[in-house]
Amino acid sequence: MTLSGPIVLTDNRYGKAENRIVRIYRDGPRHEIRDVNVTTVLRGDFAAAYTAGDQSKVLPTDSQKQTAYAYAKKPGLQSVEDYALALARHFVDTIEPVDSATVEVDEYAWQRVSVDGAEHDFTWTRQGPEVRTARITVAGTGDSQRAWVIGGVRDLIILKSTESEFADFLTDEFTVLEPTRERMLATSLFARWRFATTEGVDWDATYAGIRAQLVAVFATHYSKALQQTLFEMGRAVLESFPVLAEVRLSAPNKHHFLYDLARFGIENRGQVYYAADRPYGLIEATVARADAPDAGLAWAP
Amino acid sequence: MTLSGPIVLTDNRYGKAENRIVRIYRDGPRHEIRDVNVTTVLRGDFAAAYTAGDQSKVLPTDSQKQTAYAYAKKPGLQSVEDYALALARHFVDTIEPVDSATVEVDEYAWQRVSVDGAEHDFTWTRQGPEVRTARITVAGTGDSQRAWVIGGVRDLIILKSTESEFADFLTDEFTVLEPTRERMLATSLFARWRFATTEGVDWDATYAGIRAQLVAVFATHYSKALQQTLFEMGRAVLESFPVLAEVRLSAPNKHHFLYDLARFGIENRGQVYYAADRPYGLIEATVARADAPDAGLAWAP
Amino acid sequence: MTLSGPIVLTDNRYGKAENRIVRIYRDGPRHEIRDVNVTTVLRGDFAAAYTAGDQSKVLPTDSQKQTAYAYAKKPGLQSVEDYALALARHFVDTIEPVDSATVEVDEYAWQRVSVDGAEHDFTWTRQGPEVRTARITVAGTGDSQRAWVIGGVRDLIILKSTESEFADFLTDEFTVLEPTRERMLATSLFARWRFATTEGVDWDATYAGIRAQLVAVFATHYSKALQQTLFEMGRAVLESFPVLAEVRLSAPNKHHFLYDLARFGIENRGQVYYAADRPYGLIEATVARADAPDAGLAWAP
Amino acid sequence: MTLSGPIVLTDNRYGKAENRIVRIYRDGPRHEIRDVNVTTVLRGDFAAAYTAGDQSKVLPTDSQKQTAYAYAKKPGLQSVEDYALALARHFVDTIEPVDSATVEVDEYAWQRVSVDGAEHDFTWTRQGPEVRTARITVAGTGDSQRAWVIGGVRDLIILKSTESEFADFLTDEFTVLEPTRERMLATSLFARWRFATTEGVDWDATYAGIRAQLVAVFATHYSKALQQTLFEMGRAVLESFPVLAEVRLSAPNKHHFLYDLARFGIENRGQVYYAADRPYGLIEATVARADAPDAGLAWAP
Repeated sequence: MTLSGPIVLTDNRYGKAENRIVRIYRDGPRHEIRDVNVTTVLRGDFAAAYTAGDQSKVLPTDSQKQTAYAYAKKPGLQSVEDYALALARHFVDTIEPVDSATVEVDEYAWQRVSVDGAEHDFTWTRQGPEVRTARITVAGTGDSQRAWVIGGVRDLIILKSTESEFADFLTDEFTVLEPTRERMLATSLFARWRFATTEGVDWDATYAGIRAQLVAVFATHYSKALQQTLFEMGRAVLESFPVLAEVRLSAPNKHHFLYDLARFGIENRGQVYYAADRPYGLIEATVARADAPDAGLAWAP
Repeated sequence: MTLSGPIVLTDNRYGKAENRIVRIYRDGPRHEIRDVNVTTVLRGDFAAAYTAGDQSKVLPTDSQKQTAYAYAKKPGLQSVEDYALALARHFVDTIEPVDSATVEVDEYAWQRVSVDGAEHDFTWTRQGPEVRTARITVAGTGDSQRAWVIGGVRDLIILKSTESEFADFLTDEFTVLEPTRERMLATSLFARWRFATTEGVDWDATYAGIRAQLVAVFATHYSKALQQTLFEMGRAVLESFPVLAEVRLSAPNKHHFLYDLARFGIENRGQVYYAADRPYGLIEATVARADAPDAGLAWAP
Repeated sequence: MTLSGPIVLTDNRYGKAENRIVRIYRDGPRHEIRDVNVTTVLRGDFAAAYTAGDQSKVLPTDSQKQTAYAYAKKPGLQSVEDYALALARHFVDTIEPVDSATVEVDEYAWQRVSVDGAEHDFTWTRQGPEVRTARITVAGTGDSQRAWVIGGVRDLIILKSTESEFADFLTDEFTVLEPTRERMLATSLFARWRFATTEGVDWDATYAGIRAQLVAVFATHYSKALQQTLFEMGRAVLESFPVLAEVRLSAPNKHHFLYDLARFGIENRGQVYYAADRPYGLIEATVARADAPDAGLAWAP
Repeated sequence: MTLSGPIVLTDNRYGKAENRIVRIYRDGPRHEIRDVNVTTVLRGDFAAAYTAGDQSKVLPTDSQKQTAYAYAKKPGLQSVEDYALALARHFVDTIEPVDSATVEVDEYAWQRVSVDGAEHDFTWTRQGPEVRTARITVAGTGDSQRAWVIGGVRDLIILKSTESEFADFLTDEFTVLEPTRERMLATSLFARWRFATTEGVDWDATYAGIRAQLVAVFATHYSKALQQTLFEMGRAVLESFPVLAEVRLSAPNKHHFLYDLARFGIENRGQVYYAADRPYGLIEATVARADAPDAGLAWAP
């Protein structure tokens, strides 16, 4: 089969990726810190840049960077969602060829240092590995402007040492895995949740609440499979936060294999494991409210 | 705005990621090597695993791994596309709950070692950083079965030291970038191409031809912007390979900033650059044949 | 200058690197977890393996791996230092050609999950990025056996937003840096401390105490340079822990550059910074007790 | 055992790490590229910076960076060794408190692009993963000045699919490894060689010759163990290049395990392997000329 139709530009976007911004609030002796990695993406009337090398409608990615830093001063970075909403709106409202703008933010957590039992005013250590994420998209101008907010957490590594099994599964000619009623369950969770609105949400409190909910369900839900655990995590979050439209979960099954010590006459009853790197199972699921508003451009690349 | 509708599973998939397989062909004194990283993804009737912990339709990811290794023996890994097509078809054809399967392959290149001017029979060194990619999806069974093949290359780092400019761009209040008629242009290209068919293609020759074409256009096309260069690369590939339906290109603009040596009384006429890490521009485009068949599940997550 | 003397093996060692071991203590409803990455290194009478391909004195690295896992069961992994001492002694005491053995351990921290305000019995999330390290070497047998313990922490990322300066420095023809009385100071600390003894130390309490001390000095000491801060951190640790012989500190100066917003008419008084990746200053120092016992093989490669 | 002696600074050094410099030679239509990562380290009379916060003898790391870029223009980067020798001498000769300086360079290779069979004048693709390394140290001034050059290559990944065995090894109670007369042998070599002189060496030709020699011996030498292969590689290099004093080799044994397909009735005679990540054997050796000049500060941290 060969094709001979005209060759066309069917999709395009561009932006500035990974602007590393640290914002300090120093209005009194006790400072606050916000540490983020910001990526901007613009979509719109840019075809001529591709097809004819015409930059007249292209705002340089350098200008996008300058704006990301300027907006970190004012309106500021008190919450990453509000910052990203303002930044995305700026591009859509003031740069004529822009139809829609997405701002993606990774936020790195810092913990205030404790000195002699008291919190220090202006020193922190980095907390990780987990990273808070946000993805904000704004499209259109004026009354027809729409906006979407996706929150999330990635690299949330969580492990339970019991109350997990994997058994009664489908088998084929290549199945050699033994069913087990007792195994270690661990993952490095990437969860994202789409908000049904962009107004009236306490972003930081909601993030903390969702994270706590995800962790609690993982801990307390007896797991017949990682699939089930993920669904229960998503369901619990949606139930607790009616402001959410959907939750998307991606979870590598970080395998911990019971180490064979019997060869050496040593009993190993769930005590010594080999933590494997690759390969790993990868489970993905979306849990949603049936009455969720449409996703629009929320997940657009 | 709060939601109260029922909570449902709207999407799901699972598989085994990053099976590291090395295949040696040793039928004579001169061996051949294929070195791949294989990920399998299954979609289908798995909802009960999520909502009820019922694994009766879930083929373990371990079984998928075993199959990936077994298929590396036979039918074998002579080309990654044929291997992946066979493996994906196996899952769809023989595992009843599977509606569609995707197999993703990264292939690492090895160069035969030269000893005293002659190629060695069974020793190689790794070539990189670029990686050949393939993404094969098969859906349905029997006569209604469909298949899609996407080839690609990622981490193809390419640089030209002249014949690139960036000028006459849109400016706003945050624009401080100076236009330039002479700059370094470098990217780490991720290009993927969707085939219009899965039959009668010489996969290895086509890969080599596309890569050569991409590189040649980058080199010889005077660049008014990375956008334009990407479009021309995609267009040239589609023109030369009518078996292709579309080309997707993602290209970080790896900035090289002319270093300010004038402060020290030293002239720097395009001779000394600082190679920056972050932030970077990120340009993405899709170039397609207007008569391309629909993409179906080719790009499905 | 050309050389013509005989070619000789002058140094050698071998071992098994990066054994990923997870140890669960499950003696009651409340489990405990220890998550480590263990590397073994053996030195001794192995020259014939190199010069003649004679393996008769070479214990396979696979056997070292098995031993590392077996020792995680018993004597166990209650503290990484005791575990590593036992493992290193095993190699020196029972494998005849071994003259000395080093065991290096990275320990990853996990935080017990909180559910409804209570600590969960068997679920944790990973804490990082900082990693606790230990390096234990044992040499010789019987009465002449010696042992050394080095503790440490790496990837301890710490930042203070004020009370740091860098001024009054030496200048040369290439100096364009402006002195400053107010800057951000941040590093990713790698600190290691050599113990003067291997007996009678509460390893976990000492680790916690040293880490707290390092952090407190960084926070409270006004910094005229990262060099000074490092020395004060080392001094404070040695003063507080007379069981320590020396402290070695390696600290990249993670530059945070005040972003130039004045171009846009925006004031930036220590509020918006660009966190740079490369290059970075790298400062290294050793602080020691003058009456420290000799280091022997403690730091041997 | 507790210590009470005075606390002293026993060792220190500082510098600027990872200056990413790209140098283009554009004297005619055919350009040349040199792409390096440069780290400077200074040692000397800097104790007051640590113990008293006195910077009066501290040349800022920023000044070192400026100098590294300026020297890339002139004397230039035709060979990394000559560049680093000049840069290190500059610090020792002109910055009074500096006793010795080390300059470490990683050089990334680029391959000239081929267009229609002809080499392109100013476009290249990155070659890897291997990296050429250099480490130059200069100490003292005037007639007593000494200099050392270490060349090297790292991340040279090499694999042979036969003519390697591992058998007749020492066994203990934890030995379960089966001896084999046929296995895959692969490593990611880090080799460094110390020159006996800094004068009259064709650095680029010597690098190419040593790399070819290392690769050829790995290919053609029947391996009874990785230890033996390393020694033979070092010996061959020293024999061929009498200008070298010693060779240091560090080689992870990148295990490729024959995959068990017999469970599925499939024969696997050295055809399908699992390429493992961790753990891995790690073998290290130094091979030297007995009449080598002393290493002095060549390897100083």
